[in-house]
Amino acid sequence: MASRDRPSPAEGARTIAASTNSGTLATISSAGNPWASFITYGLLDGAPVLCVSSLAEHGRNLSADQRASISIVSPTSDPDPQAWARVTLAGVAERPVGAELAAARDAHLAAVPGATSYIDFADFALWLLRVGRVRWYGGYGQMDVVTGADYAAAQADPLAPHAARAIAHLNADQAESLRDMARNLAGFPDATAATCTGADRYGLALTVSTPHGTAHTRVGYAAPIDSHDDFRSATIELVQRARIGA
Amino acid sequence: MASRDRPSPAEGARTIAASTNSGTLATISSAGNPWASFITYGLLDGAPVLCVSSLAEHGRNLSADQRASISIVSPTSDPDPQAWARVTLAGVAERPVGAELAAARDAHLAAVPGATSYIDFADFALWLLRVGRVRWYGGYGQMDVVTGADYAAAQADPLAPHAARAIAHLNADQAESLRDMARNLAGFPDATAATCTGADRYGLALTVSTPHGTAHTRVGYAAPIDSHDDFRSATIELVQRARIGA
Repeated sequence: MASRDRPSPAEGARTIAASTNSGTLATISSAGNPWASFITYGLLDGAPVLCVSSLAEHGRNLSADQRASISIVSPTSDPDPQAWARVTLAGVAERPVGAELAAARDAHLAAVPGATSYIDFADFALWLLRVGRVRWYGGYGQMDVVTGADYAAAQADPLAPHAARAIAHLNADQAESLRDMARNLAGFPDATAATCTGADRYGLALTVSTPHGTAHTRVGYAAPIDSHDDFRSATIELVQRARIGA
Repeated sequence: MASRDRPSPAEGARTIAASTNSGTLATISSAGNPWASFITYGLLDGAPVLCVSSLAEHGRNLSADQRASISIVSPTSDPDPQAWARVTLAGVAERPVGAELAAARDAHLAAVPGATSYIDFADFALWLLRVGRVRWYGGYGQMDVVTGADYAAAQADPLAPHAARAIAHLNADQAESLRDMARNLAGFPDATAATCTGADRYGLALTVSTPHGTAHTRVGYAAPIDSHDDFRSATIELVQRARIGA
């Protein structure tokens, strides 16, 4: 198996799903019409867990027809909506039972603490979306279809909750090191500057300035990291490797 | 006809639709499954105008089955997703023609300037959602169903784009006046303080502190305003009326 140098589409989809707790559910009404409605969710092994009132339009729809999909947009401050990372998770909703019901309840409450005030009301029920197919859009030019099995087997990126701060820190304090990475690790020997625009468990995304224009590239850690705790040592190794190359 | 003292559900729905340029479309796939997907839109007399690629999953869906709905969530910094104002607009999508096509194109580009880079590509087409039914959720306890005709006849609140700044200004500079409004215009003679939590063309929403607890109320201008330009004079009249009552 070839080692990856960046998150797979399945990992990207899991990361987007884990990045927030609200999205939009599509269901089918009794008249056969598609119905889009705002929902909150938690995740149980990547499967969205909804807490839905049977009195609500989408609750009535799900009770009669369990086919559903959920669109999730990753929170961002980017003003260009076409660049926003998003995912559609499509499948069939089920009412979990037994141990899975307990786990689903915990997953929903962990993500939506305010649900404590209604989760036990008689008209509310938990629904778990068994994801059968995923459409992932990671940004311009990054899109793919992912199977439910690949989605279930993937992990959300452990660095994602910390990436914005990590990137800001690198750009503020490590401008020369980022330029050296571009020059000596990414194949831009004439780089005049480089900015970090992304960080994940595989490495850093860089935007590189050269006399010929701007380029986008990546530099990889010595090995993928499994925890945010390993980010500092992985980037120190990158900085040292870039300096030795210089 | 009784005069209103607050926005109607139809006005609330139009205001939410006008508050942003992105939402989630629900369509039906060729296999009959509901499909939720991120979209950008402009508004033509309240009807969402989408610019959709026929290569995209939702574009293929619309070409085969024009039934659709769009869920829109109003941008907010409130951390409680259950409080977010949102709306579902349901109906049938059509390809506008002639003068309406030109107007729809202008409406989309006004809301989504970045669409200039693809709106004229051969695989992209404009779709206009003819809104037949609306489900409006304005916040806790504020929900209703609105007909397509009422939605079409209503206007988005002219103060909405300026409300956040207006509210911040009132709370920073007019604390005594807000308290006087609560005491003398809203029926809380023992109010110890009041905070403005909303502003629209009909008046202000106040949260009132009293020795008995917190209450939520509204105070209305002398007459509804039709423009942000009239907000200052309307609130000055309110301040004066509250002071005279004191």
